[in-house]
Amino acid sequence: MKLHGYFRSSATWRVRIALALKGLDYENVFHHLRKGEQSAPEYLRLNPQGLIPALETDDGDVLTQSLAICEYLDEVYPAVPLLPADPVLRAKVRAFSYAIACEIHPLQNLKILKRLKGLGFDQAQTDQWAQTVIEDGFEACEKLIERQDGPYAFGGSVTLADILLVPQMNNARRFGVTLRWPRLQAIEAACLALPAFQRSRPEAQPDFEV
Amino acid sequence: MKLHGYFRSSATWRVRIALALKGLDYENVFHHLRKGEQSAPEYLRLNPQGLIPALETDDGDVLTQSLAICEYLDEVYPAVPLLPADPVLRAKVRAFSYAIACEIHPLQNLKILKRLKGLGFDQAQTDQWAQTVIEDGFEACEKLIERQDGPYAFGGSVTLADILLVPQMNNARRFGVTLRWPRLQAIEAACLALPAFQRSRPEAQPDFEV
Repeated sequence: MKLHGYFRSSATWRVRIALALKGLDYENVFHHLRKGEQSAPEYLRLNPQGLIPALETDDGDVLTQSLAICEYLDEVYPAVPLLPADPVLRAKVRAFSYAIACEIHPLQNLKILKRLKGLGFDQAQTDQWAQTVIEDGFEACEKLIERQDGPYAFGGSVTLADILLVPQMNNARRFGVTLRWPRLQAIEAACLALPAFQRSRPEAQPDFEV
Repeated sequence: MKLHGYFRSSATWRVRIALALKGLDYENVFHHLRKGEQSAPEYLRLNPQGLIPALETDDGDVLTQSLAICEYLDEVYPAVPLLPADPVLRAKVRAFSYAIACEIHPLQNLKILKRLKGLGFDQAQTDQWAQTVIEDGFEACEKLIERQDGPYAFGGSVTLADILLVPQMNNARRFGVTLRWPRLQAIEAACLALPAFQRSRPEAQPDFEV
């Protein structure tokens, strides 16, 4: 498999974690987001949305959207499941994941911040925008799991929810958010103690740069 | 089951379509979004995110996030599947769905437009914002299915992709987007010819108002 990504992209990071948890080998193809390499014609032929990540399977299929890729990996490589077996719990794990993937991440990614700057926002204003989005979202996330045991978001096994949370916590720090969600912070710490999360971090990628 | 929703909410609309396609009975509980009823304390106890829709199951579980609810319904009531059987095709249907649920809808919903207005945007500017978001998103959506046959987004059976598309097409019209995506428009027409889509429309709901 080939993973098209970028070290800093939190959507790519999600897929890296899923691949690492499942112990799957893959080849990296890097696309430097800040240089706009995701909009190069040859990449647009592969993924017309011009977004990373994309996963090329061994059969040559090109899969896009990080959550769709994670669900695919979970269906095709069911060892080390990313979702619990119980349908209600699966729905709760997915709801937490979408609370990040739909309600937080798209509102603070590079594309939207660029759009805001194009409309006259300065750096302080876009940072404030991102902070507010993340703070509102994390308030909801903390409540969504208040009845769940740790150490991970949904009990004793890592799920898709943890895969979404860890990269988003990193984004929060990058935007200067003061972390004040004890459960979320404890989950992040528990995850980062695992080798699969350790080697998926942006700093551990070959294309990492300061 | 009880569906907590609002006639105009496109996220609620998605769940209505899924329930209707599967022929499932449910009770409606309406929360008037423009009156802020989704932030009433009793609803926040049910759904701390203060978002609709939420689905209360017969066992008293409260499920949130429209896509998580649709996946739950598909797992628990597998007749009339919302996803194809093949994992690659499932991933493509989900990717199309997330292209709407993550890349378009959150950037043009009421909450974000209110935030923009709070930062000084006038009505014309928020409309322009929503139009741009939808146009960019639909460009990508049209490409994502260019190799798929009709009449629906992914062939001869309705999938989650169609459930996401039809409400978003309606949003596009509300924001004055000039529709110029022949495939998306043909899919919408094919869907709206089906009784399940017909009776899920906002205009067909008991809480509808002009």
